[in-house]
Amino acid sequence: MSRRRQIYEGKAKILYEGPEPGTIIQYFKDDATAFNAQKKGTINGKGVINNRVSEYIFTRLGHIGIPTHFIRRLNMREQLVRQVEIVPLEVIVRNVAAGSISKRLGLPEGEQLPHTLIEYCYKDDSLGDPLVAEEHIACFGWANNEEMQDIAAMAIRINDFLCGMFAAIDIRLVDFKLEFGRLWDGDYARIILADEISPDGCRLWDMNTGEKLDKDRFRRDLGGEEEAYQEVARRLGLLQNEDGGPGEVFDLSTARNKLRGSKTKH
Amino acid sequence: MSRRRQIYEGKAKILYEGPEPGTIIQYFKDDATAFNAQKKGTINGKGVINNRVSEYIFTRLGHIGIPTHFIRRLNMREQLVRQVEIVPLEVIVRNVAAGSISKRLGLPEGEQLPHTLIEYCYKDDSLGDPLVAEEHIACFGWANNEEMQDIAAMAIRINDFLCGMFAAIDIRLVDFKLEFGRLWDGDYARIILADEISPDGCRLWDMNTGEKLDKDRFRRDLGGEEEAYQEVARRLGLLQNEDGGPGEVFDLSTARNKLRGSKTKH
Repeated sequence: MSRRRQIYEGKAKILYEGPEPGTIIQYFKDDATAFNAQKKGTINGKGVINNRVSEYIFTRLGHIGIPTHFIRRLNMREQLVRQVEIVPLEVIVRNVAAGSISKRLGLPEGEQLPHTLIEYCYKDDSLGDPLVAEEHIACFGWANNEEMQDIAAMAIRINDFLCGMFAAIDIRLVDFKLEFGRLWDGDYARIILADEISPDGCRLWDMNTGEKLDKDRFRRDLGGEEEAYQEVARRLGLLQNEDGGPGEVFDLSTARNKLRGSKTKH
Repeated sequence: MSRRRQIYEGKAKILYEGPEPGTIIQYFKDDATAFNAQKKGTINGKGVINNRVSEYIFTRLGHIGIPTHFIRRLNMREQLVRQVEIVPLEVIVRNVAAGSISKRLGLPEGEQLPHTLIEYCYKDDSLGDPLVAEEHIACFGWANNEEMQDIAAMAIRINDFLCGMFAAIDIRLVDFKLEFGRLWDGDYARIILADEISPDGCRLWDMNTGEKLDKDRFRRDLGGEEEAYQEVARRLGLLQNEDGGPGEVFDLSTARNKLRGSKTKH
């Protein structure tokens, strides 16, 4: 691993050159940041869970025809993905008011939005990822009009799929962040889903108790972030539950998981 | 005047019920605010100049077919306008990076934008008039799609007209703010230009010296704000210049103007 060329180290992942041209290895760290990295910490086992949850979601999005960068999971913390040119936008899909939009527009947290809202933020940590409009995106050439249409259409489809997926496990999908990239084929680029989808970039509330099962537990010092991430993985069938019921099982031992009685295999 | 019903007092204007139904009197104050009213002061004679400059611009925009709320100027500080239902958006048209966009997107002040950019802010002082995208406007129903198309088309036309008008008097139109309103006719509303256009809501830079001839003199404690407003009015031919040359002249005496040798008439 140490001989691989590191391409980029982000807040939650490290990117390495992949084994073949046009591929990248995404390594999922346990590092957690919030408020544009003003708050830093770790959530034990987060990288392992996010790698697995993101594999699960990207695979299933592929099944409904959403093109993604995902190729295959390599091991506990790594997945092989296609190399893309990242569109410098965070695409935020919101179903319910929470977080920055609540503060910015004075909307009570938990209020259902009149309809699903897509927000775009310009990806620039030094500027704090400022909100932008399609006018800015066109003006500064961050994406062209056709690309924006593809991004918006995919974001809506992904939201519909994820709302259904999480509803089935009693989770309310409040909002989530997507990133897209250009996959070049000669002179032609098409837009595909990139990055990850995991409790790091989603707001996930338990439908019955309202309990937060996402990174807000870390952001807001609520505690129990490790258990929250594990709970999402468990409900998705990615961790064996306490009854020893069915479910894809994987090894969390390296992540010092706190689940009682979890069995492990590779 | 004291028997008129006051409808609303804003930061720079007071609105009174007009003499006929469907009309409003706009009274222009000398009060100046900046940074969402965190900074307060007065610019002597500002109201008189803004009333006159806005009359001048709205009249000429009417001549090129932009529908506006302006009916006629009543006196030094007041104009009669049509009553409209204000669309709760500040429409900001930018040709050159300055002010909030420079800070928000890290663009050097004075850098020409790749093309003219329209930004929308939600008019809410308590929220600090946050930037919004068309998605927010549609989601919360602040204006419908047809209205937004009318607003954008008018904003672009107004920008073209104003760029020409200011270029003719050696002023670079950096950016400006517009507000629009719904003029109801039975069940049908059409969008017309409302509020004012004056050095309060524009960034105006002398083309040769780069000197600021607008409210930034007040915002940034540059001094000379009274003279800057007068200079804009003078170049537009609304104040007699020092040579006694031609130009529409009006009385600034009540506003304790500092222009030397200005002659006045009513």
